[in-house]
Amino acid sequence: MGASECKSDLMVAADIHLAERLFDALRTGTGSADGICRASYGEGEAIAHALVQKVAHALGLAITRDAALNLYVTLHGVERGPGIVVGSHLDSVPRGGNFDGAAGVLMGLAVQAGFVHAKKRPKRDIIVMVIRAEESTWFNASYIGSRAALGQLGAEELDSVIRSDNGRTLGDHIAVAGGDVAALRKGIAFLDHAIISAFIEPHIEQGPDLSDKNLPIGIVTGIRGSSRYRTARCVGSYAHSGATPRHLRKDAVASCAALLVRVNALWAEFEARGEDLTVTVGQMMTDEAEHAFSKVSGLVSFSLDMRSQSNATLEDFHSGLMAIALDVEREHGVTFDWGQVSGSQAAIMDQRIVLALSDAARAIGLEAPAMPCGAGHDAAVFANLGIPTGMIFIRNQNGSHNPDEAMDMADFTAGAEVLLRFCLDWPEKQA
Amino acid sequence: MGASECKSDLMVAADIHLAERLFDALRTGTGSADGICRASYGEGEAIAHALVQKVAHALGLAITRDAALNLYVTLHGVERGPGIVVGSHLDSVPRGGNFDGAAGVLMGLAVQAGFVHAKKRPKRDIIVMVIRAEESTWFNASYIGSRAALGQLGAEELDSVIRSDNGRTLGDHIAVAGGDVAALRKGIAFLDHAIISAFIEPHIEQGPDLSDKNLPIGIVTGIRGSSRYRTARCVGSYAHSGATPRHLRKDAVASCAALLVRVNALWAEFEARGEDLTVTVGQMMTDEAEHAFSKVSGLVSFSLDMRSQSNATLEDFHSGLMAIALDVEREHGVTFDWGQVSGSQAAIMDQRIVLALSDAARAIGLEAPAMPCGAGHDAAVFANLGIPTGMIFIRNQNGSHNPDEAMDMADFTAGAEVLLRFCLDWPEKQA
Repeated sequence: MGASECKSDLMVAADIHLAERLFDALRTGTGSADGICRASYGEGEAIAHALVQKVAHALGLAITRDAALNLYVTLHGVERGPGIVVGSHLDSVPRGGNFDGAAGVLMGLAVQAGFVHAKKRPKRDIIVMVIRAEESTWFNASYIGSRAALGQLGAEELDSVIRSDNGRTLGDHIAVAGGDVAALRKGIAFLDHAIISAFIEPHIEQGPDLSDKNLPIGIVTGIRGSSRYRTARCVGSYAHSGATPRHLRKDAVASCAALLVRVNALWAEFEARGEDLTVTVGQMMTDEAEHAFSKVSGLVSFSLDMRSQSNATLEDFHSGLMAIALDVEREHGVTFDWGQVSGSQAAIMDQRIVLALSDAARAIGLEAPAMPCGAGHDAAVFANLGIPTGMIFIRNQNGSHNPDEAMDMADFTAGAEVLLRFCLDWPEKQA
Repeated sequence: MGASECKSDLMVAADIHLAERLFDALRTGTGSADGICRASYGEGEAIAHALVQKVAHALGLAITRDAALNLYVTLHGVERGPGIVVGSHLDSVPRGGNFDGAAGVLMGLAVQAGFVHAKKRPKRDIIVMVIRAEESTWFNASYIGSRAALGQLGAEELDSVIRSDNGRTLGDHIAVAGGDVAALRKGIAFLDHAIISAFIEPHIEQGPDLSDKNLPIGIVTGIRGSSRYRTARCVGSYAHSGATPRHLRKDAVASCAALLVRVNALWAEFEARGEDLTVTVGQMMTDEAEHAFSKVSGLVSFSLDMRSQSNATLEDFHSGLMAIALDVEREHGVTFDWGQVSGSQAAIMDQRIVLALSDAARAIGLEAPAMPCGAGHDAAVFANLGIPTGMIFIRNQNGSHNPDEAMDMADFTAGAEVLLRFCLDWPEKQA
C-alpha cells in the first residue's frame, strides 16, 4: 500500500499527502546539516506552529490559542458534548529529528483534513492540540505546554525556570513569543476536562520494539514512571595497580561492575516474573583529574535510570538495589553515595481506549501489539489528571532525539487509519 | 629503637642522622605546598643531586659522573674486584612525595657514612649510584638513567623522546643539564657488568602489604612485568533508556561490567593456585560527547593493566581475558576494540641475593617477608642484563607518587641495618 492510498470504508480517508507536504515543509523550515532544531518557545517551534496554523486555516478549521500559546485546531462535530483531543508537540531537541512530536500533530491534521475533503463531520468535535515546550532539554522542566493548558504550571516556574542555552526565564520566553504571562500566573486551566472524552497522542516509538517485531504500529498501555540517580558516586581508595594485592583494594571500578552485574541479574528476575521495568547505567566515569591506568580507582561517578509502568515495581526494585549496594559496600570496602533521586510517576492509559484503538487496528487488518512506553510524553499529564488517555506508537528507526530519526510514511499511514477509525467509533461507544 | 640508635655488632653503624638531615634538605629544597617536584633533568633533580654530592664530598668519598649525569659515589674497598652498587633515583613525579627514589640513595649514603665514621673500609668497593630520570611521567620512557649507564639507551631516543611538560627533547635536556650527548649517541656502557657483584635498590614499598603485615621491611623476589591496554574500547549502540528492552540492547557499560566481574573472578582463580598477578581497570569512561543518563551507552573507553613476576602467568591470563571478551561480545552484541598493547618483561631478583638479604634481616632479628614488587624500578634493567640484583622494600603509608607519601625513620633504619650487614657479608660469601 502506497503512502497516498489510505482509504477508509467509511468514505473518509486521512490526507497523507498533506502530512507529507508538512513534514517536508518542517524539515526545510527548521532543519540544517546538523539536524532539526525547534527550540521550545524559540524560532523553530514558532515556524512549525505557523506552518500548521496556515494549513488549518486553509482547511477552514477553527483556530484558538491559550495563554501559553498552545494551538487548538477544531473540526466541529455534528453535536455538542465531550470530543476527542489529538495532541502532540512540535518542538525538538537540538540536533534532533523531524518526527518526534510532529508526527502526532500531523496525524491529527491528516484525519481532520480527511473529514473536510469528504465533506463529512464527526459526531463530536475533533481537536488537534499543538502543544508547546515538551522537550525538557530546553527548560529542564517537563510538559510545560500541557501543564499550562491544564492549570498545572506553577506561577513560580515562570520566573525560576530558565532556558539552558540563553539563561532567560520561561515567562520571558512566553511573553516574547506573544503569550499571556499574567493569565498564566493565575494558574487557570484553559482546557476543561469535561469537554474531553479522550486524549490521544500518536508518537514515534523511539525504541526498537516495533522494528524488531516487524509491525507498523503499537498501542501503548502505560507510560513508564522513573526513578533516577543522576549523580551517584562510588568512593573507594586510589592505590598502585601493581603493588596493591586484591584483598587490600577498595576499587571503585570493580565495585561498580559488581553492582551493575547484580542489578542486571535482578532486572532479569523481575522480567522473568512479568514485571515491566528498564534499568540503565548510561554514564559511568572514573575521575579524569586523578585516575590513571596504573592506579586502582578511588572514585567512579555514574547515573542510574529505572523505569516502570508500575510505581510498586519501581519501589520493589529500588529496595533490591539498596540491598545489593550494601553487599557490595561490605565486600569491597567502598561507599555508594547516591546523591539526589528524581523521577516521575507512571501513567496508565485508559483501558477502554486501549481496547478501542486495538479494535480499530484489528478492523483494518493490522496486528498492533499492546506495549509500554518508556519515554515521557504529554499524555502522562492528561492521564494522571484522570482524563481518558491513549497513545498510538508508530514504528521508527534509529531511535529519536537525533538527526537520523526515520519513519516510513506507510507506518504513519497505518497509524492515521487507526486514529481515523477510532475517531469515527469512539463517540458511538461512549454514548 | 630510636632512629638514631642504629648500631651494628660489627663496629659500623649506618648514619641515620645524616639521612634524616638529607631528607629534610630535599624537602626544603624541592618541595612546596603542592608536594615534592624533582623533574627528570630539571631543576628539582639537579638540586637533589647537588645536595647528595656535597655530602659525599664532605665524607671524602670519590665522585664521578657518566655522560647521562648519573652520579657515582664510591667508598673504596680494601681489595680490587667486583663491588656492590646501591642505586636509586632522586627525581619525583609532579606533586610527588619525598621518599620514592630518594630513600634508596640516602640509605646507601648512610651505610657509606657509617664506614667513614668508623674509619673502616669494606672488603670491596661500595658504590652509591644516583640514577637520573626514573619517573616515566616526565619523558614517557622508562629507566632513562640506568639504561644510559648500561649502554641500553637508543641514540634515537635522545631526539624522539620529549618531556611532557615542555616539549623539549631528552637530548636537549641532558645537554642543558651538562651531560655529554655526543657520548650517549655512541651507546657505550659506562658501567662494566664485571665490576658489579650485586646491584641493590632499596625503595619504599609503594603498596600496603608491609603495613598490613605490620613489618618494617621486605625482600623483593621479582619485579612484575606488565601487559597493558591503555586505550581499550567497548563499542555497543546508543538507545533510549526507557524504550529499549533488555534483549535488544547492546549496552557498552553493562558489557564492561560483565567483562570486569568475570576478569576479577579469573584473577581470584589464578591467585588461589598461587600465581603472582594483579589486574586493574583504573580508567573507565562513557563518552562525554554522547552519553546521557537516559541513554543506553554505545561506547566505553577503559584501561586494563595486568602485572606478574611470571611472563607465563601474564600470557595465560591474557588468553583467559580474550576468551571472556569473546563470550561477552556474543552475549551482549558489543565489540571490544583493544587498541595497542604495551608492557614490560618481568625481572627476577637473584636468588643468592634474596637469600643473603633475608639472612641479614634474620641476623638482626627482623622478620622480612619475601614479596613481589608491583611497580617498575631501575633494578629491572640491571636484572634483565644478568647482573645479580636485589631490592629491599621499606614499609610506607599512603602509597607513592603523591604528597602524602609517608615513611617512618625507624623502618628506614631497619632497612639500612639489613643493607649494611649485606654489604659486610656479601663479598665474603662471593669469594
